[in-house]
Amino acid sequence: MYPFRDGSFAVRNAWYVLAWGSEVTRQPLERWLLGEPVALYRKLDGGIAAIAGNCPHRHYPLAEGCLEGDSLRCPYHGLRFAADGQCDDIPSQSHVPRAYRARSYPVVQQWEWVWVWAGDPERADPSLLPADEEIRLNEEGFVYRPFYFHEIKARYQLLNDNLLDLTHLAFLHASTIGQRENSTTPDVREQTGRRLSSRREMKDVALAPASRLRHQGKVDRVSAMDFFAPGLHAGIDETRVASSDPERGGELLAAGRVYHAVTPATRDTTYYFFANGARSEEELDRKFELLKEPIAEDIHASEEIERILSRMEGPPRELLLKADAQAVQGRRLLQEMMDREQTAGTAAGGAAPEPARTG
Amino acid sequence: MYPFRDGSFAVRNAWYVLAWGSEVTRQPLERWLLGEPVALYRKLDGGIAAIAGNCPHRHYPLAEGCLEGDSLRCPYHGLRFAADGQCDDIPSQSHVPRAYRARSYPVVQQWEWVWVWAGDPERADPSLLPADEEIRLNEEGFVYRPFYFHEIKARYQLLNDNLLDLTHLAFLHASTIGQRENSTTPDVREQTGRRLSSRREMKDVALAPASRLRHQGKVDRVSAMDFFAPGLHAGIDETRVASSDPERGGELLAAGRVYHAVTPATRDTTYYFFANGARSEEELDRKFELLKEPIAEDIHASEEIERILSRMEGPPRELLLKADAQAVQGRRLLQEMMDREQTAGTAAGGAAPEPARTG
Amino acid sequence: MYPFRDGSFAVRNAWYVLAWGSEVTRQPLERWLLGEPVALYRKLDGGIAAIAGNCPHRHYPLAEGCLEGDSLRCPYHGLRFAADGQCDDIPSQSHVPRAYRARSYPVVQQWEWVWVWAGDPERADPSLLPADEEIRLNEEGFVYRPFYFHEIKARYQLLNDNLLDLTHLAFLHASTIGQRENSTTPDVREQTGRRLSSRREMKDVALAPASRLRHQGKVDRVSAMDFFAPGLHAGIDETRVASSDPERGGELLAAGRVYHAVTPATRDTTYYFFANGARSEEELDRKFELLKEPIAEDIHASEEIERILSRMEGPPRELLLKADAQAVQGRRLLQEMMDREQTAGTAAGGAAPEPARTG
Ligand code: FES
Ligand code: FES
Ligand code: FES
Repeated sequence: MYPFRDGSFAVRNAWYVLAWGSEVTRQPLERWLLGEPVALYRKLDGGIAAIAGNCPHRHYPLAEGCLEGDSLRCPYHGLRFAADGQCDDIPSQSHVPRAYRARSYPVVQQWEWVWVWAGDPERADPSLLPADEEIRLNEEGFVYRPFYFHEIKARYQLLNDNLLDLTHLAFLHASTIGQRENSTTPDVREQTGRRLSSRREMKDVALAPASRLRHQGKVDRVSAMDFFAPGLHAGIDETRVASSDPERGGELLAAGRVYHAVTPATRDTTYYFFANGARSEEELDRKFELLKEPIAEDIHASEEIERILSRMEGPPRELLLKADAQAVQGRRLLQEMMDREQTAGTAAGGAAPEPARTG
Repeated sequence: MYPFRDGSFAVRNAWYVLAWGSEVTRQPLERWLLGEPVALYRKLDGGIAAIAGNCPHRHYPLAEGCLEGDSLRCPYHGLRFAADGQCDDIPSQSHVPRAYRARSYPVVQQWEWVWVWAGDPERADPSLLPADEEIRLNEEGFVYRPFYFHEIKARYQLLNDNLLDLTHLAFLHASTIGQRENSTTPDVREQTGRRLSSRREMKDVALAPASRLRHQGKVDRVSAMDFFAPGLHAGIDETRVASSDPERGGELLAAGRVYHAVTPATRDTTYYFFANGARSEEELDRKFELLKEPIAEDIHASEEIERILSRMEGPPRELLLKADAQAVQGRRLLQEMMDREQTAGTAAGGAAPEPARTG
Repeated sequence: MYPFRDGSFAVRNAWYVLAWGSEVTRQPLERWLLGEPVALYRKLDGGIAAIAGNCPHRHYPLAEGCLEGDSLRCPYHGLRFAADGQCDDIPSQSHVPRAYRARSYPVVQQWEWVWVWAGDPERADPSLLPADEEIRLNEEGFVYRPFYFHEIKARYQLLNDNLLDLTHLAFLHASTIGQRENSTTPDVREQTGRRLSSRREMKDVALAPASRLRHQGKVDRVSAMDFFAPGLHAGIDETRVASSDPERGGELLAAGRVYHAVTPATRDTTYYFFANGARSEEELDRKFELLKEPIAEDIHASEEIERILSRMEGPPRELLLKADAQAVQGRRLLQEMMDREQTAGTAAGGAAPEPARTG
């Protein structure tokens, strides 16, 4: 599926954010992950359970069920499933075979992100979660806040493409957080394993239009983003008095940490979790308001492109620019990860990564 | 199509209910049957005509036409079709070739059900209609009433699955007509040709939550359902004073006859006709109110499962319980009927049962 | 795609009307042509540009962009395209390779029609545009007016079928512009290259029901339509005092020119541009009101038939009448044009005419 090779949809053996921690309560929540429904709920000990969102009996949505302790009872014929997916009650029979289970998903809460492992549970690898330090989470002197959750009518890669090429700030967000130099300043790129980094240093520029910072002169801005494939983009945004200013040059005016978690829900819908860090609650308040509009612009762009792609005949051709290097590298990285899974899956007789849809 | 083999959709050579008798008037009615539109109307002699719902000229919906005697004139170019489908007027030419006809469907009204034969008209077999006696229709001491008609956004087999496994009463309908014993009491099953019977006798149980019967003590309940494949479920529901009661044991408190006609309209929409019999008009009034909610719950379950199935990647796995024996047997029976038709169709050079959709 | 051979959708090397001239302004307009988005805008010199509606960079809808002179800047990453499709600015890099271009479409404005060439620009042939004289445009003594634009939820050929068989006036438009004789009077047909002509002369008939002409007696009517395949139907409608009237026989009561441009937007949506000519502005006013209802009836017919076709299983059979000769000839003509393109395309290694949809 564009922009990937036909038959490639998404990396399966990976962690994706499916909810904010605060959304996972004793009232089960249905979310989708790579074309499968998942039921999420909070266990009595505060941990999180993530099991199949379709009851394995007759596919009734399990998240409509009620909890009994840490077990979830399906409202249709009353089967009950423990937090690990094991069926632990079948009202119509006394014996529950061990093999009666709902799929369960490995789940980890890191800060407010509820990460769920989409692939083979045996291969769930906590070391693939981004470490707090490498994404500058829980830094001394910073406070953090989940900002928005959106369900987007677009294939997920359109969001990744957006985040891997921040030259778009100069145009799509020209009236808020972007300025011409977001496009004209080249970035410095680096790949370390599954991390793709891009860093752009803009010297002696004006404040971004909607920054609302109280400063008259020129500034130096740093805009950097690390993509932790396949599901998280973590960046920083710093504004300092321009180093050309003889008196206050280099003085920090604003420093932000931004987090975009992008999750393939289904083939053409995406979950988008946006969070921020800043040096004070007041700065977070300011950013919460400031960033509403650019995020809405990103969603608009993705949904408009999806509208175009879904109506068009034939596969569209594309221009490649120098500024696309990171986006191209990001697509290549995901394609390689998918190819490796497909090879491994085929070798092991596993399921193909893009099964035919249910008839 | 799940839960059938790929390429299997529905039994064609069979009767299905397409309307209540009262719905078929001199104003033609469009209904769909196995992916084909049908125009139904009342003839001057009170009989019913069922002809193609798409004009065989240019596919204008014939049910938008007007009757002239027993003939239906298409509002687009004015071709007129008799009740047997024969074209009997072409305004733009004087001669009407005998071969100019709309498809016509054998139709039989039994009580308030308008049964239409979906398959080869030559093979329409009235003996396949359920006999009044075997479904306890027009019984001495009973009155009958059509209750509700619903068009459901779900594949029809989800409704059949629902009706073939009444253990769901204990959960899906826990607040109205169901009670725990609907699930814990085993049923007695029997197959006679295309009839699958299930009978459950619950002894010494409480009244169902919403029964509104005036009785203080325990009761004995009988809940039985016969599936006349492929399109009708006919059941009885009896409540008596528990036989353990020394004085009134066995005294009949309520006796009902229930009828669920399930018709595949298209691949993912289903018509559902629900009727009841009881010992008095007052009891029918009571049931008409009482049963609204459980029927809405059944529809909700089917449409929710369809939502899950239609979004999911890949074919879902299923658990089989002991209580599924009847549903499994029902699916198997329909699959066998479809397989026989396909074999017969292929042998006779007939059309495959699941043709490709119109482009 | 019905009613064409599987794999045939629409003639590509042809002119289609995509807009009224007045719709094309300095505010770019998105329209679709044979499954591709097109951005239309007015150049500074008054000419019209028609370039790809999806930015060739990342498919953002170009018509959401802003004009800078005659160039259109994409609002996403700021690429700018000249009216001929050549990229003329990439903000993030200094060099713009010559090969960076958006597709551009040959475009011609004739009267209020904006004709766009859907196929190979090299083969755009102005001689395929209908000449003013052959469609009676800009005739002495006549004034002309664009009437309505509609986007219709139906495949385009249903509109062509409608216009190629005007016997439908007698029924679909029985309450407005049609009368029985529209169906019973045979037409005289003629083919000249890609023009199919049909002319029907009705003698000694009543006025059409809603004609609003002030005349008591019988009239003679001429109803003629020329199909200029694949996209325009140009007709005349004349009403005279019946020649049987000894005094005023032959006196012209009304004379109209009607124009229906039918454009395949996507596989199942069609643009419909309806215009009229008459002998005075007052007569155009009268017709503007009079023709609203019959045009709505034609749209209703096409959308209802599309609803039937899109839900039906399997390809529908059709009756052929004598009155269908012109419609059949029209379909055959389009099929031949498509077949020739496919042969030519295959011979030249070109793209197949019905590519698989984007995944
Ligand atoms: S569907 Fe959940 S118990 Fe049957
Ligand atoms: S479509 Fe019915 S008469 Fe033409
Ligand atoms: S999508 Fe138009 S410039 Fe990138």
